[in-house]
This record gives sequence, structure tokens and C-alpha cells, in this order.
Amino acid sequence: MNKIRIVLVNTTHPGNIGAAARAMKNMGLSRLYLVSPLTFPDAEATARASGADDLLANAVVCNTLEEALSGTTMVVGLSARERHLNWPVLDVRDSAVQAISESVEGEVALIFGRERTGLLNDELDLCHYLVHIPTNPEFSSLNVAAAVQLMSYELRMAQLATDKTVPVEVEPERKLADADDIERMFAHQEKVMIRTGFLDPENPRLLRRRLRRLYNRARLELGEVQILRGFFTAIEKSLDRRP
Amino acid sequence: MNKIRIVLVNTTHPGNIGAAARAMKNMGLSRLYLVSPLTFPDAEATARASGADDLLANAVVCNTLEEALSGTTMVVGLSARERHLNWPVLDVRDSAVQAISESVEGEVALIFGRERTGLLNDELDLCHYLVHIPTNPEFSSLNVAAAVQLMSYELRMAQLATDKTVPVEVEPERKLADADDIERMFAHQEKVMIRTGFLDPENPRLLRRRLRRLYNRARLELGEVQILRGFFTAIEKSLDRRP
Repeated sequence: MNKIRIVLVNTTHPGNIGAAARAMKNMGLSRLYLVSPLTFPDAEATARASGADDLLANAVVCNTLEEALSGTTMVVGLSARERHLNWPVLDVRDSAVQAISESVEGEVALIFGRERTGLLNDELDLCHYLVHIPTNPEFSSLNVAAAVQLMSYELRMAQLATDKTVPVEVEPERKLADADDIERMFAHQEKVMIRTGFLDPENPRLLRRRLRRLYNRARLELGEVQILRGFFTAIEKSLDRRP
Repeated sequence: MNKIRIVLVNTTHPGNIGAAARAMKNMGLSRLYLVSPLTFPDAEATARASGADDLLANAVVCNTLEEALSGTTMVVGLSARERHLNWPVLDVRDSAVQAISESVEGEVALIFGRERTGLLNDELDLCHYLVHIPTNPEFSSLNVAAAVQLMSYELRMAQLATDKTVPVEVEPERKLADADDIERMFAHQEKVMIRTGFLDPENPRLLRRRLRRLYNRARLELGEVQILRGFFTAIEKSLDRRP
């Protein structure tokens, strides 16, 4: 992830720069490049970064996009348009998988354009791929920090998928009831259901089956079986105690 | 997508409500529920919605989370924690696929907690699944609107994927209970548990939570809720009856 840079071009609102930094850091990215930001540094950027100040402090501010792309081997531009003549357009997910795989060998840049107008044609010319985020066609203008968030998230998902060192998830401590516990619970339940007149012992089939299905689906824990049996016992004692 | 609601609980910053509305609309979602927002409506919310004003105007403001869940059959809570005892934790992508598939039959709610503290245990108790967004462990606090953005994006990706594929075979006849049925069932159960002396109304918390987890895991059907309530009624009648 440290060979991937996020490049924001001519960002107008410093709040978006801060929010983009936060989004990056949330997803494990750290290298932020700013091409001619309107206002930077700025208190609003720091506020919205919400703890990702280090990314702002280390941000590389450049005058031109070419400067920001120096040393990269794969350049990807985010675009609001779904199709571009003569440009390969990837979806976010595929582009993230490819960026992660190319970052093993070289440096990757992901470019995000201006709030209102996106990337200009001259800037698109510098890209190997374009990425389109499949927004609602009736309301497609995505906030630039939101676009950085989605791209960063997909990069992290792709990174985690390739990461062989992630330890196998340990199942949380859960002691399942065994078949004998469960049979005793059902027998107890049935006794109480008959005693309260809810279950007709002459014709118990359907009810019994439905309750079994319910509890089997839940995969009962031993502690839960104990709770249910405690409840049944309390019902029996209350019935014994009647005046 | 119109059977999926986004529920924001106790949101502090109105800007986050606006940004969440924009994120939703960008991805084709429209139903926003707000549980006791600190300030709403608010100029900052409208500014950040940036054209998604209709979602704010149509937002359903509720006093309680239970109110916001009325009529839903699948409830998903976003959580910053990676593991929870005894709760199924899905990743964003899998949960989106499942939500899209369940929204064919019923209503789905996705719950997002407070900016600082997320969802409380009582609120998690209402969820069938929890979702964890795999953030950088060293900087994991995701802005709530960013979380809505990621979830909405995955929902849209899942929706677009199903549009392209042949519709999946219809599940065998299974009518899930909705949140209202389930709340009434729990209230009834509690009444009987108190009456039989099994539940101490002064200290019901742990027992209540464990039972909720059990039944939420099972995804109760309407018929099952009716069976359980029938059983509770039979217990009450038996206790009323003098021997």
C-alpha cells in the first residue's frame, strides 16, 4: 500500500482534502499528493482529517500533475463518465486488484479531479486506465473525498485478499450444546407444553417439528439450553404453587 | 433498493446526515431514518447533502430505534469491532449481497451508530447480523457518512450484479416475522418469565440479551412467533386456572 499514491488535482474545498486524508488512513494508505490546491494547509482540512494530520503534514504539494506522477508506472484516473473513446475503463474493484498487483513492481498513482469539473482531457491523457464508479445516473456527482473513500476501500479489500499472512480467524468462544443436552431440553419443553394444554400429546407431530427446526437453525449453545430449561422449571414450580 | 432503509442513530453532526443522504442518493438508495438526531433539520445537513435534499425532506425521524425498525425482517448493524461473541459478523460485501437478496421478500434496515461510540449493546441486540468494515487497525474510526458511503456502494454493486444474472430460484415458502412481531413476542415472553419468577425485573439485562441473540440468530418465521406466543398464552391460562 505504500507504493500507491492518491493525487488530488486542483481541489477547491480544503475540507475535502482533510476528508480524503482520513479516508486514506482508515484504509491503510499514506501517500497524498496535492496538485495546486486552492487553499492548503487550512484549518478546515485539519478538522476533517480528524487525526490523519500526519498524512496532511507529509502531503507532497506540486505545481503540475506531471510532477505528482514522477516515478510512477501505473496511472489511473477517476472519471464520472462511463465510457471514453479509446480508453480502457475499469470498475473500481478491478482497478484496485490491478493496482495492488502492479504495486509489487512499481509505483501506482490514482488521480482525482476537481469538485465541479473532474479531470481535463490533458490530464486524462496521462492515464493508463480510467475508473468509473457506478453511481446512480440520475444523481451521479460524487464528492471527491467519497470517491477517495471508495477507491481506498477497494484497494484495502484487494490487499487483504492477497495477503497470505493474515491469521486465520479464531472462532469466538462458543460452547455448543450436544445432542443429548438438546434432546433433554426438548423433552422438558414437551412436558411443560402438555401440562399447560398447549401441546396435544395425541397429535404432537407438526408442532414438535417446527420447534425443532427453529432451535436447530440457531445451533443452540449449552448456556442457552440451560436458560430454556431454567424457564421450564420455573413454569412447573409456578404451576405447583397455585392456590 | 427501495426496500432498504439506512438508519442513523443519535447522529451528533448534522453535516454527517447531509453527507450520508448524498452518499445514499449517489448509489440509488432513498430511504433515510433518523433516530433522535441532535440537530435536524439543519443548514449544514442541507449544504452537505448537495442536491440530495429530497432524501432529507423525506427522512423519517423517530424517537426510538424500535420505531425505525418497524416492518423490517432483516436488521444489520455496523460495528467497529471485528468480533462479537455469538454474533454473526459479515463483511460489507457479503452483507450487501445478502441484503439485496432478502429485500426481494422483505424490508431491510442498516443501522449506523453515533460518531464517537457507535451502537450500544441494547441496539446491537436488535440486529440479525453485524457488519465490520475492515479498516486499518491503527486508525479505525471511520466517519459515519463514509461508512454509509461504503455500504451504499456495495449495495449498488450487488444490485447491479443481480441485474446481470438470471434471478435466483425463489426460496421455499418462508414468511419471516417482522420487527414488530418479534418485539411483541419478546414482551410477552418477558411477562411470563417475570410471572413465573424466572426473570428478575430488577435485573433483566443479561438474560434478555442472551434470549435475543438466540432468536435473532434463528431469523424467526411468523409461524414460529405465533407458536411461541401460543405457548406463552397457554402458560398464563394454566396459571390463572385454579386446580
